[in-house]
Amino acid sequence: MAFRHKSVAQNVKKGVKNSNERLEFLGDAVLGSVVAEVLFKLYPYEDEGFLTELRSKIVSRVNLNQLARKLGFDKLIEYDSRMLNSSRQGSLLGDAFEALVGAVYLDKGYDFTKNFLINHIIKSHIDIHKLEQTETNFKSKLIEWCQRHGRDIIFELVTNLEGESAKLFTIQASVDGEVVGEGKEFSKKNAEKLAAEKACESLGI
Amino acid sequence: MAFRHKSVAQNVKKGVKNSNERLEFLGDAVLGSVVAEVLFKLYPYEDEGFLTELRSKIVSRVNLNQLARKLGFDKLIEYDSRMLNSSRQGSLLGDAFEALVGAVYLDKGYDFTKNFLINHIIKSHIDIHKLEQTETNFKSKLIEWCQRHGRDIIFELVTNLEGESAKLFTIQASVDGEVVGEGKEFSKKNAEKLAAEKACESLGI
Repeated sequence: MAFRHKSVAQNVKKGVKNSNERLEFLGDAVLGSVVAEVLFKLYPYEDEGFLTELRSKIVSRVNLNQLARKLGFDKLIEYDSRMLNSSRQGSLLGDAFEALVGAVYLDKGYDFTKNFLINHIIKSHIDIHKLEQTETNFKSKLIEWCQRHGRDIIFELVTNLEGESAKLFTIQASVDGEVVGEGKEFSKKNAEKLAAEKACESLGI
Repeated sequence: MAFRHKSVAQNVKKGVKNSNERLEFLGDAVLGSVVAEVLFKLYPYEDEGFLTELRSKIVSRVNLNQLARKLGFDKLIEYDSRMLNSSRQGSLLGDAFEALVGAVYLDKGYDFTKNFLINHIIKSHIDIHKLEQTETNFKSKLIEWCQRHGRDIIFELVTNLEGESAKLFTIQASVDGEVVGEGKEFSKKNAEKLAAEKACESLGI
């Protein structure tokens, strides 16, 4: 069930489908908890801000998509491509990875899942120290994605709302003319970064 | 350590304090995972959207603050009230609850923590079915908080940004003249709800 996308799932009862979505909900939580502990112990002298940020990078859709592709999930996931636009297809992989974690947890419990994740996934496939160094560059990720999919991307500085500090910059990222992300910051660069991050989020990149 | 707020913590090494913040990071994750499983099993025929929303209500700062107060944590937490403005004092309680979960987890492991949470906290202190029915009313919560703290609250409809759909309404919530939350939705009511929710979040209410 962890590999069955809702586009090919059937109703089992009261409108609930036998897709991987509920398992994904559970697996996301278990994975978050395991990664939290790994980082808590690996970095005994870092504060919770550092731990939170590093965990976000590890469990980001981007990172989990890459991981799942590396593990060959693209050959295992059942889905109907007609039901998906291209922007959503990528995240099937990360979703299925989380669902798998949920399924392993239900079958084998927490300690087994934790050992499985640490010994077979994290140690061999996730370079935590490299992620620690990487600043996620959402802008280039977004531009790259748009190029690959033949979409138009622009970043636009918009005028401040009435009553808003003149020091605040608002940047909107638009794909094919539709606003997909907005950032408000005290520097244009940071506003753009935030807009790109929001855009990646809303497009599921 | 779970009950020691950073305002009274001491540096132990390399700028890390012996406060409850790291334990809170860990406990937040473990609690999220336990609650996810409880809901997954309690509601076998609800989809992940339902589960996600209900979990948010259970682990919301508001709910955990209430829970921790009921458990008497206000008499146990060490903090320096001069270091805190009144708006942040409330969340000390929920933070400490999460930190306690983290501490129990480190000492006793996942299964023990899960049983402790289910049998001693969730069953006796959290009315899941009631929370299921409650729609969190952020607007009244926000207004109530402002009244209690003598702050001015207004909700304002702002003009749409250029290029934005005319059907979209933007509402900003301002406290003492400072925008603290904004909502964009296709109805004014929903835009206001979202603005209030964002405001509660940014004020830590």
